[in-house]
Amino acid sequence: MFPNPLRDPRDRRLPRVPEPCALVVFGITGDLARKKLLPAVYDLANRGLLPTNFALLGLARRDWGNQDFAELARDAARKAARTPWREEVWERLAASVRFVQGSFDDDNAFDELAATLDELEGSHGIGGNAAFYLSIPPAMFPVVLKQMQRTGMAESTPDRWRRVVVEKPFGNDLASSRELNELVDSVFSAEDVFRIDHYLGKETVQNLLALRFANTLFEPVWNGHHVDSVQITMAEDVGIGGRAGFYERTGAARDVLQNHLLQLLALTAMEEPVEFSADEIRTEKLKVLRAVSLPEDLRTFAVRGQYEQGWLAGQRATGYRQEEGVDPASNTETFAAVRLGVETRRWAGVPFYLRTGKRLPRRVTEIALVFKRAPHLPFADTDTEELGNNQLVVRVQPDEGVTLKFGSKVPGSVMEVRDVSMDFLYGEQFTEASPEAYERLLLDVLLGDATLFPRNAEVEASWSVIDPLEEFWAGSTPEPYRAGEWGPRAADDMLAAEGRRWRRP
Amino acid sequence: MFPNPLRDPRDRRLPRVPEPCALVVFGITGDLARKKLLPAVYDLANRGLLPTNFALLGLARRDWGNQDFAELARDAARKAARTPWREEVWERLAASVRFVQGSFDDDNAFDELAATLDELEGSHGIGGNAAFYLSIPPAMFPVVLKQMQRTGMAESTPDRWRRVVVEKPFGNDLASSRELNELVDSVFSAEDVFRIDHYLGKETVQNLLALRFANTLFEPVWNGHHVDSVQITMAEDVGIGGRAGFYERTGAARDVLQNHLLQLLALTAMEEPVEFSADEIRTEKLKVLRAVSLPEDLRTFAVRGQYEQGWLAGQRATGYRQEEGVDPASNTETFAAVRLGVETRRWAGVPFYLRTGKRLPRRVTEIALVFKRAPHLPFADTDTEELGNNQLVVRVQPDEGVTLKFGSKVPGSVMEVRDVSMDFLYGEQFTEASPEAYERLLLDVLLGDATLFPRNAEVEASWSVIDPLEEFWAGSTPEPYRAGEWGPRAADDMLAAEGRRWRRP
Repeated sequence: MFPNPLRDPRDRRLPRVPEPCALVVFGITGDLARKKLLPAVYDLANRGLLPTNFALLGLARRDWGNQDFAELARDAARKAARTPWREEVWERLAASVRFVQGSFDDDNAFDELAATLDELEGSHGIGGNAAFYLSIPPAMFPVVLKQMQRTGMAESTPDRWRRVVVEKPFGNDLASSRELNELVDSVFSAEDVFRIDHYLGKETVQNLLALRFANTLFEPVWNGHHVDSVQITMAEDVGIGGRAGFYERTGAARDVLQNHLLQLLALTAMEEPVEFSADEIRTEKLKVLRAVSLPEDLRTFAVRGQYEQGWLAGQRATGYRQEEGVDPASNTETFAAVRLGVETRRWAGVPFYLRTGKRLPRRVTEIALVFKRAPHLPFADTDTEELGNNQLVVRVQPDEGVTLKFGSKVPGSVMEVRDVSMDFLYGEQFTEASPEAYERLLLDVLLGDATLFPRNAEVEASWSVIDPLEEFWAGSTPEPYRAGEWGPRAADDMLAAEGRRWRRP
Repeated sequence: MFPNPLRDPRDRRLPRVPEPCALVVFGITGDLARKKLLPAVYDLANRGLLPTNFALLGLARRDWGNQDFAELARDAARKAARTPWREEVWERLAASVRFVQGSFDDDNAFDELAATLDELEGSHGIGGNAAFYLSIPPAMFPVVLKQMQRTGMAESTPDRWRRVVVEKPFGNDLASSRELNELVDSVFSAEDVFRIDHYLGKETVQNLLALRFANTLFEPVWNGHHVDSVQITMAEDVGIGGRAGFYERTGAARDVLQNHLLQLLALTAMEEPVEFSADEIRTEKLKVLRAVSLPEDLRTFAVRGQYEQGWLAGQRATGYRQEEGVDPASNTETFAAVRLGVETRRWAGVPFYLRTGKRLPRRVTEIALVFKRAPHLPFADTDTEELGNNQLVVRVQPDEGVTLKFGSKVPGSVMEVRDVSMDFLYGEQFTEASPEAYERLLLDVLLGDATLFPRNAEVEASWSVIDPLEEFWAGSTPEPYRAGEWGPRAADDMLAAEGRRWRRP
């Protein structure tokens, strides 16, 4: 699965440990670093998945020493680590924590960073390998990347690797995304760039691939002959939190549809890859993304909404326009739904309904294959009155698992068929705990495994789907929906127009 | 589903109540009557499923009056009823209980029975309708049937129906079964004969039909393109109990394979019927039974066994030859397994492995579709080492339900696929309780619904499968197996010869 010529293939099941290396985090004092990255580093160390020769570096403006950074890191890790706290693990880590003081436009700081990396090569045997995590706003990418280029620290050689990790948003539209990609590619080689979509770190990719391709049961019905439609939902019950500034500029389509939902669509619709290498999987996903078609009638089949004041879990929820930092006349959407097509032999004619929103009734991400009804029912109409379409639901979160909905006879003397369901929950059948998304993704970066990271071309293909939507929506007012409801009525009408209904997940 | 011109089709879901009628039981003092039939009559009455005008009649040699019979019936019902006891229900029933004293060759007794039925037509308004339940050894069929013919009580007219219920064994081979069928058919018209296979009263027929034909998910893989093999098992942990006399003459193949297992095979392999009427379903089952082929190499692919002393659930179990009433040199088999083919377009080339036995580790009846492995696995060999074939298992008893076995990724950073399962249990998802087999079947007899009762031709087609097996086995000694094991080693060798293994249900 992860080709590694250095490893004995018989050891495939043993988790791999990265080569000696350093992890450099820009934006070390930010939310993401504290809540996700630093705890993930600790968890990896605790699981024995960091190399013995490892160093953690941070660069920030604060007037700190190594000790201050080590303390921040310790507090952050202790607070949010997934695995039990073991002081001795932390102490080993702390010995190789380095802090470099300076701002991103400060040449000296970057010179010092480069020197520290060189020095660690000798003192900590990190072998010259380093991954740079850009946990900073995209606006700062150019200056940081330029600095890295200037100091030569972005350069992989046959003797060492240098990798960069970029967080979404990957641009704001096709043009800006291209620009960003070109910038990153001018500094790092393409195979050294890791674009994080943390949704794909939730083992979802591999679970879906295993479900589809390790089994015989599902693949025969996984196509337009048997599938009536596909519904992909990512619902959040929360609002925008403190991120008004970011959200006002972004909206639901750019924030979620462009990346998470289209990636899930690609994984659902893709053909079987020749092998499970990063290249082959990304190639198959790209083929799907390029085959995605928008509906002609955008007025009916593309819906954006904005939440109004309402109730959620017994609590009053503020309307979007009343949130702190939001323009009281804002036209940013907090809900987006669209009917897409996938113009491949497997899927032509099958609508893919995608939706995402904030302040929906519950937090859930799922992919539902809704099957056609049985073509010939020897049952009387009334026998199957309560029978819906068969469904195969892949739940991404929470409670990752698979649900099968099908019709079964109600016990008793009369023939009456009703929907029942069968569930499989990863958490119930495996004692192994799933690693956190960032834990998994960080490890993959250090291992150089790009399977779970979308490629340049995928990001651009996704923007090609979103751009026409954004254009169509430009200047319009989103449909209002009450917080705590499943989006605006127009989203229901969109499916009703073709005689369908959204699942209530 | 059950065409009944008298009923408003909108009421289809309401359970139907039979027309006024009488139920006449021959062999009223036997085990079956006491343990199953009389409790079933009470349960039906308690559920409001007997007509207001109903009478229960018994004929036996004992010197009894109506009151004695009513008391026996009450004790039996009270002891084994499925539904709660309500004295007032029983009292309504008791008022129409009639006992006729006499032996089966006693013309007077049958004349009296006929007269009682006529009398009840007036006094209890049973409308002349009656079902005769032959809960007696097959050897007595001729004399009882002749008596019924002589008195004219077997005759259905446009104004009344007369039906007969026959228990298995339906003969001992094709010839004797034909003889029996001819005898019964010479007295009753074919549509008035109900052959009971109580395994099919466990809702199994309808559950299987609903599962297969009300859904889209299963039918596309329900064929030889996707199914590698089918395993049908009926295992009992008990021995032969007090039935040595019967069992010595019969053996596992005639007792179970000929009827239960071949009926389950027919239900599994049959095509979709045009409608769910008795006629259409029985036609489809018959097509399968006539397409069943025996293996050429019976030495490898037909195995009979006999249990020896062993251990079961911590208790010592006697060997078959040491059981009371069994010939110490008996060659009767208590285990039978065979590999059959179904020569239809859907199933050609797919082996159907059937097995049944006594003193096996547990009581279980199930149908397992074992699927082919995925044709192309982009996984590395070691990723899927622990992955078996996908399976869809229909469990008939105990805990009626459906289990799906498939491969899923083990949580963690490496790709490793392992078998997991999803269960659906009727008992968990429905609050409706399943009626007892005899409750269900008795009701169907009174309603005239023959869906669950095999037809003449099915019985004969089944014997055509069994006869050559019995011929091949004649005079041979069954393979010994220890009580508490899954049959003789030859049964494992039978599957191993083709690279397969029995499920451990």
